[in-house]
Amino acid sequence: MIVAMKPEADALDIEAVIQRATQFGCRVHRSQGEERVILGILAEARQLPSTDAFEALPNVERVVRISTPYKLVSRQYQPWSSEVAVNGARFGAGGFPIIAGPCSVESEVQIFETARFLRDAGIPLLRGGAFKPRTSPYDFQGLGEEGLRLMRRAADENGLGVVTELLSEADLPAVAAYADLIQIGARNMQNFALLKAAGASRKPVLLKRGLSATIQEFLLAAEYIAAQGNLRIILCERGIRTFDTSLRNTFDLAGVALLRELTHLPVIVDPSHATGKRSLIAPVTRAAVALGADGAIVEMHPHPEQALSDGAQSLNFEEFSNLQRTLAPYIALREAERRQETSAMAAAVA
Amino acid sequence: MIVAMKPEADALDIEAVIQRATQFGCRVHRSQGEERVILGILAEARQLPSTDAFEALPNVERVVRISTPYKLVSRQYQPWSSEVAVNGARFGAGGFPIIAGPCSVESEVQIFETARFLRDAGIPLLRGGAFKPRTSPYDFQGLGEEGLRLMRRAADENGLGVVTELLSEADLPAVAAYADLIQIGARNMQNFALLKAAGASRKPVLLKRGLSATIQEFLLAAEYIAAQGNLRIILCERGIRTFDTSLRNTFDLAGVALLRELTHLPVIVDPSHATGKRSLIAPVTRAAVALGADGAIVEMHPHPEQALSDGAQSLNFEEFSNLQRTLAPYIALREAERRQETSAMAAAVA
Amino acid sequence: MIVAMKPEADALDIEAVIQRATQFGCRVHRSQGEERVILGILAEARQLPSTDAFEALPNVERVVRISTPYKLVSRQYQPWSSEVAVNGARFGAGGFPIIAGPCSVESEVQIFETARFLRDAGIPLLRGGAFKPRTSPYDFQGLGEEGLRLMRRAADENGLGVVTELLSEADLPAVAAYADLIQIGARNMQNFALLKAAGASRKPVLLKRGLSATIQEFLLAAEYIAAQGNLRIILCERGIRTFDTSLRNTFDLAGVALLRELTHLPVIVDPSHATGKRSLIAPVTRAAVALGADGAIVEMHPHPEQALSDGAQSLNFEEFSNLQRTLAPYIALREAERRQETSAMAAAVA
Amino acid sequence: MIVAMKPEADALDIEAVIQRATQFGCRVHRSQGEERVILGILAEARQLPSTDAFEALPNVERVVRISTPYKLVSRQYQPWSSEVAVNGARFGAGGFPIIAGPCSVESEVQIFETARFLRDAGIPLLRGGAFKPRTSPYDFQGLGEEGLRLMRRAADENGLGVVTELLSEADLPAVAAYADLIQIGARNMQNFALLKAAGASRKPVLLKRGLSATIQEFLLAAEYIAAQGNLRIILCERGIRTFDTSLRNTFDLAGVALLRELTHLPVIVDPSHATGKRSLIAPVTRAAVALGADGAIVEMHPHPEQALSDGAQSLNFEEFSNLQRTLAPYIALREAERRQETSAMAAAVA
Repeated sequence: MIVAMKPEADALDIEAVIQRATQFGCRVHRSQGEERVILGILAEARQLPSTDAFEALPNVERVVRISTPYKLVSRQYQPWSSEVAVNGARFGAGGFPIIAGPCSVESEVQIFETARFLRDAGIPLLRGGAFKPRTSPYDFQGLGEEGLRLMRRAADENGLGVVTELLSEADLPAVAAYADLIQIGARNMQNFALLKAAGASRKPVLLKRGLSATIQEFLLAAEYIAAQGNLRIILCERGIRTFDTSLRNTFDLAGVALLRELTHLPVIVDPSHATGKRSLIAPVTRAAVALGADGAIVEMHPHPEQALSDGAQSLNFEEFSNLQRTLAPYIALREAERRQETSAMAAAVA
Repeated sequence: MIVAMKPEADALDIEAVIQRATQFGCRVHRSQGEERVILGILAEARQLPSTDAFEALPNVERVVRISTPYKLVSRQYQPWSSEVAVNGARFGAGGFPIIAGPCSVESEVQIFETARFLRDAGIPLLRGGAFKPRTSPYDFQGLGEEGLRLMRRAADENGLGVVTELLSEADLPAVAAYADLIQIGARNMQNFALLKAAGASRKPVLLKRGLSATIQEFLLAAEYIAAQGNLRIILCERGIRTFDTSLRNTFDLAGVALLRELTHLPVIVDPSHATGKRSLIAPVTRAAVALGADGAIVEMHPHPEQALSDGAQSLNFEEFSNLQRTLAPYIALREAERRQETSAMAAAVA
Repeated sequence: MIVAMKPEADALDIEAVIQRATQFGCRVHRSQGEERVILGILAEARQLPSTDAFEALPNVERVVRISTPYKLVSRQYQPWSSEVAVNGARFGAGGFPIIAGPCSVESEVQIFETARFLRDAGIPLLRGGAFKPRTSPYDFQGLGEEGLRLMRRAADENGLGVVTELLSEADLPAVAAYADLIQIGARNMQNFALLKAAGASRKPVLLKRGLSATIQEFLLAAEYIAAQGNLRIILCERGIRTFDTSLRNTFDLAGVALLRELTHLPVIVDPSHATGKRSLIAPVTRAAVALGADGAIVEMHPHPEQALSDGAQSLNFEEFSNLQRTLAPYIALREAERRQETSAMAAAVA
Repeated sequence: MIVAMKPEADALDIEAVIQRATQFGCRVHRSQGEERVILGILAEARQLPSTDAFEALPNVERVVRISTPYKLVSRQYQPWSSEVAVNGARFGAGGFPIIAGPCSVESEVQIFETARFLRDAGIPLLRGGAFKPRTSPYDFQGLGEEGLRLMRRAADENGLGVVTELLSEADLPAVAAYADLIQIGARNMQNFALLKAAGASRKPVLLKRGLSATIQEFLLAAEYIAAQGNLRIILCERGIRTFDTSLRNTFDLAGVALLRELTHLPVIVDPSHATGKRSLIAPVTRAAVALGADGAIVEMHPHPEQALSDGAQSLNFEEFSNLQRTLAPYIALREAERRQETSAMAAAVA
């Protein structure tokens, strides 16, 4: 059960809820959101008290029973879709914002060239890896903080936001200083220490699905972040690992549709890692738009054939422009439908 | 290497090719197509002769070297997309024909009610199981030939074609007598005896991907049918089996995009088995349209809550109409693009 | 619920059970075993009648309620282990009989050389493929009936039994005429028509687990055979398909241990297909012995480097002898333990 | 290519190797081991220099070309098996040492009771979780440092070593202070920051295989630790995630056999997580012994039915004693074989 306090609730109001819960033998999980405190009431025994027990307490806004193991991120907790805004891009608000950039920041020339292109293409967010999670310790591990600095400068000169991966709690201060959106990669989806650290930061978080994570485990990983009071979370499906090695991963697009039923958080896709194949990026991203996904993160590079990592799945500038062109009418169509659905719902409510 | 003979080639012309191949130490695989004979030249040793060795022989139309293990179904063999027509529905010709009907034929009322609805909805093909592959021997196994008869009558009265599954070589005469399109189910994708039998029939075949079949194994299963001289094959992605049990299967939509690059055969989707969840059918089928799939097969039932099998994933009539409505603008958009691509290609060639 | 009739039960006795079941609204599934009739009572509604309803009827031997979807093959139905004897080899009786031979019968020399070696090595059963299920239609498909004849002659001259795969119902008469143990391969584990045909034959059946079959699906496939009245079934774990391609398959040895809890049928292993790697056959087969498996089927070839299929996983004669040597003390140890367990159980009962 | 320096090599000797490598356009990876420095020579271009280029340099002990992506942990680098000793238990030295204890440290009574039992049972190493990686943020997260203190005291009073999981770099000082063997859990197998931290500590590391890690990824994760100069690594197979949910995971025993070919590091098994089922622990652990595994880690609890986590897979004291009893003759048999192999090898060398 979740008890959401009103913004004006003070320490005494909160204490009153905690005491009531304790009387019923429940544990309380406190999240300090930006505007309000959320208290998770967890039954140690099987029996939760009724919601009445809390609704009448002062400055309690809402009490919700939630049947899924994830609570704060579920649509039961919040039926309407959340919007997460990053540098002007609004995820979950009906459009299809794209995050783009190279797998790794490799050089000043590379990242500035990319940033200028993105600005001209109307793309608001620049991605790039400074700390790289590589399967082998002998592979290129990224430029580290120097990479962050380059990316920040390139982004600032072109009015872009920065998206980059956090690999270690120790790097959090540096990454949080340079990035507008902190990425937690697939291999760290159940690095619970990192999730808690990202949750405790005040930054929005892009959480990628683990290679073999079920939908429920994915949502529980998001719940780790949310339970720290940070609900500015964007989920990202990036392909799962299955028996079929025809492509780099198996792109679970139906999972995206399912996620949109189960959670109010925005859900975007990463067609580059999901397929690993340049020629498939356009068709599968069109599919994601038609399905109702909330955006995409796409690897691109001024010269993919020279990339230090992920060249085979990176688009060059021309291919990226073609991608935008092929997506445009699908995004427009989806938008028109969504507006219709919204006004139909509004009419139904009125 | 594939040697396609001209339609007018006679026994002597064919024998000349075979002798030449034998001189080079090759095995020859002969397929008798409806119009022409196709000879597959297979090197026992590693070394294939050059194509010249055959091109000059009389009534040889084309000689193609093919690097993939599947030959006749590959885009290397035939770069343009094949069209498979069944009862007026044209798969691979640019539209998005839908096959619809119940999992199993259960009764005369059920199948006639469905057929009338489909006629009114403009759906050309009625599906329904008469011989059912059930995991347990104690589950409902279908009405057998009685089911085929009912379906045929219901279809004939409403101007529909019949699509039904073949489970056993022994049933082939009956199934071929009643069906317009013979389905090979996922569990039989590598039942090579059944594939050969279906290939030897003169009926178009709907081949479903096996639960754990790679893309290459899927194409090689199609090659078994093709190698019998029957190239009227429609491939169907129906979800693969992975670690994630959030949905009935994992819908491999990127695999559909990959298939369309590798084969000239039409590729359709089965969103019902792929997801097992009624509410996801519409979004994932919209995705399939945007991706470029060639059609769909959808489970529907006059009263899903009373269905003897697969009720949870079957649409009722109203839901099916909603599906058609939500797909229509995406199909139109995709069509417009395809026409543009085609005329651009034509212009480029001219 | 299962009602086992006494061997002396006649048509009237059976009819009495069926009528009683029908009164309770149940369907009845009749299996004609070699010695007795087994009636499966299946509740259409959720409610089964109590066992009393049948126990008092004439010539009813036993009435058992079974909570799993598979019935006749479950340990609930028969708590003691079944023994399946083939040409003197007793599977499920405590030893560790081995079936050995080449992937495919290739020539008279090859199969006779193998058969002589096996006789000298004390191996009772010769395996060899005459009809081969090959992923590509262009791969070697086996010698067909000629292969069966060669294998039978080689076996007869050396006092061996013949084990070979059945690929098609149409081949059943030929295969049943030549083989002592009919193999259903992994790709056909859910070829229900083939399972029924094998069940209706009077031959013992070696059923291999499908590449992506769960343990329950495997047991239900066996139930298809059993439901035809043929309980002479040997199950075989041969590796499942997972994300990891380090080896040909993933050998599910814990699944073998689980199977031995769930079913009374003997369970053997196929280390050759499970690993695909010659050097691992000995350690994983030792593991299977220690685990309690009931035997093994092993690929071997006089000259693996010349084999037309599966050379990389086939043992040569010397390697096979080494395998026997390394297994012997483990088999002896396991035997001693089993005798102890049995006498402890007997003492407990007495 | 790996250049191992002699223990007496000084800074100048090392610098000489680095300069030579740089002349050839190679990158150098330096690992400071406890006794010696290991230099990994990595070709930026495709071409490595010949080994001669380094063998003649002063105080170079050995130069080895290694074809696998993992280097220091490969059997190519070190053909003989490594021994990792922890509190008197010697992994990789031929025995089958067992690590045992509860999933989580829950209370003083629980952990002391367990430790006394283990001492009496002759088990040298006590496991227990103080920081627990739980899928849900609302599940019991462990007692933290208080748990470490309890476990250390219980271990010290009974002459045991302590094995516990490290979840976060931030906890390393505390965990390293209390533990004799630091565990990296499956979910963190590709938490590269944690691997590096564990590698930089001077403690032996127990590295568990990730849920969907290939054998090669597993070895590369070990290489991350090794590349920090810490080769005291024990690998642990604990089941992988596949389509089959009959058991908690799929136990990849053949993967253990493969690992023992590819790496010189000891490889142990975790039958508790691999199966999740108490009754299977004994048979699968017997299998692991017969296969040649180097030990096991087993969950046990004074009162499994009251455990806060993993009760269904934990053995009670009596079951644990039975496990030891059933393993003993297999361990003895394996030992006898190994001694024979070793003396045969010694004889062959002499």
